[in-house]
Amino acid sequence: MPVVRIVEVGLRDGLQNEASELSLKDRYQLVKKLSFSGLKRMELGSFVSPRAIPQMQCVPKLTKKVLLAQSKGVLPKGITYSAFVPNRRGFERAVECGLKEVSFFVSCTESFSQKNINMSIKDSLKNLRWICRSAGKVKVRVYLSAAFSCPYEGKLRPLKVANLADRIMQKGVFELSVSDTIGSAVYTDVLKLMKALQKKMPVKKVALHFHDTRGMALVNVAAGLETGVRVFDSSIGGVGGCPYAPGASGNVATEDLVYMLDKMNIKTGVEIPKLIKTTRWLEKKLKHSLPAKISFLKYKKLDK
Amino acid sequence: MPVVRIVEVGLRDGLQNEASELSLKDRYQLVKKLSFSGLKRMELGSFVSPRAIPQMQCVPKLTKKVLLAQSKGVLPKGITYSAFVPNRRGFERAVECGLKEVSFFVSCTESFSQKNINMSIKDSLKNLRWICRSAGKVKVRVYLSAAFSCPYEGKLRPLKVANLADRIMQKGVFELSVSDTIGSAVYTDVLKLMKALQKKMPVKKVALHFHDTRGMALVNVAAGLETGVRVFDSSIGGVGGCPYAPGASGNVATEDLVYMLDKMNIKTGVEIPKLIKTTRWLEKKLKHSLPAKISFLKYKKLDK
Repeated sequence: MPVVRIVEVGLRDGLQNEASELSLKDRYQLVKKLSFSGLKRMELGSFVSPRAIPQMQCVPKLTKKVLLAQSKGVLPKGITYSAFVPNRRGFERAVECGLKEVSFFVSCTESFSQKNINMSIKDSLKNLRWICRSAGKVKVRVYLSAAFSCPYEGKLRPLKVANLADRIMQKGVFELSVSDTIGSAVYTDVLKLMKALQKKMPVKKVALHFHDTRGMALVNVAAGLETGVRVFDSSIGGVGGCPYAPGASGNVATEDLVYMLDKMNIKTGVEIPKLIKTTRWLEKKLKHSLPAKISFLKYKKLDK
Repeated sequence: MPVVRIVEVGLRDGLQNEASELSLKDRYQLVKKLSFSGLKRMELGSFVSPRAIPQMQCVPKLTKKVLLAQSKGVLPKGITYSAFVPNRRGFERAVECGLKEVSFFVSCTESFSQKNINMSIKDSLKNLRWICRSAGKVKVRVYLSAAFSCPYEGKLRPLKVANLADRIMQKGVFELSVSDTIGSAVYTDVLKLMKALQKKMPVKKVALHFHDTRGMALVNVAAGLETGVRVFDSSIGGVGGCPYAPGASGNVATEDLVYMLDKMNIKTGVEIPKLIKTTRWLEKKLKHSLPAKISFLKYKKLDK
């Protein structure tokens, strides 16, 4: 039975796109619920300046609380908690809080890099090199963002992306999360990019990160599975997108992803009813519904 | 460049699941808008008893109006309009109205057949044989419903489904629309069923009909494409499902399907901006939003 590992990014990629802020207490509850659902990898948030993303202000406190709880056995062992770090300062703070894994961001186009993080690709790579050299036993994951298409430069050539990916991996990165940041890729785009990437690195180093902006996220996961990818990112409930808002652009929902994988006889170790309960709880806290399809339904009715 | 033909079923499968009724005038407007979007096959509704499905009361009038307009050149030539007929009486009325194509329903399980149309599979097949014999030049399409899973009997064996499909085709049916009526199939289910079906009939006789109940419709289309299927059913805007209602279960949205196919360099001849405009119009008429993902976005922004 094939096994897929899911990286839960709802607390980072999801909550940073939420208008309403979730308190430290609620975030901890969310981490706890997710941790007992069978997920083994989870981002807690971003170590960014509160001026840049105010929603992430409490992430250092949350990180300490979570890691303390884990060390005391209140949260399950065997879960890797991580956080996003945009720069050296963020990396240092994340490591001070005790994290053993961080994630970093490199854009595939100069325009997206400048507009999104106000930095050139070259400077991103410099920062990445510094981080990897300082990392010691801390594992560094990289989001290769706008890997299929850029909001400013349009569709990307797979070879260009693969070359950049290669340079990134050589810095000592343990995993590359190839991200369709604007949610515009389709099935064939994934097949093509994966073909180019596999010439540069083993497929087990690649994760895929899809947004469901145009409803293509699960199709793209299926394409990724076809090419041998076994790590996928997702957000509980699809948080970060809102079904009522134009341009809803959340990550693929964790429960929808697990549902599809379950039905394809692919093992994730994650329990859907617990995810659905967590989504219902989160919807109350955020005061709006979330896009996950499966959570619309009563899970008991699903398996008929 | 591969070509896919889309069968628009919004006026039938979509509107029959709508609480609010659309007037004859509005339905005609809808047919007109869809006809000028590049769609070549379209169901106008069902020839059922108004007691069974009141929403379909005006279908005979609509059919006459549409076919008259087409004969006068008001609606484009080259479009095949059809309608669903549940029985002999419906078939006769549809043919009287001038239709050259009808569709009929056969369930894959006895329980679903009884509960849904109050008839055994055996009697369905008898009716089908009668219809095919009486059809002359009128083409008969069959929906093979609950082909993947039945709400009462659970998951189906592909071989059982393929055997029934074979019996249906032998009656003189021109196309079998294999339907995931409860929207529970995933990628691998489609591959498996198609493998079984292809032993019994050429793939060009097969259409696929997916509901997006669990968000799997486009993934299943991708699986169908992999196996060589080139005809897919869809509903404008995903009408029949509602994003705000639990258990939303519309067909895959026509614009989402065309968007994916376009981006995969598969030709449909259908213009997405016209579909999006039609969905916006329909949302106003139905007084609620529709599930199509692409219509959430401004199309101009999509192609970057």
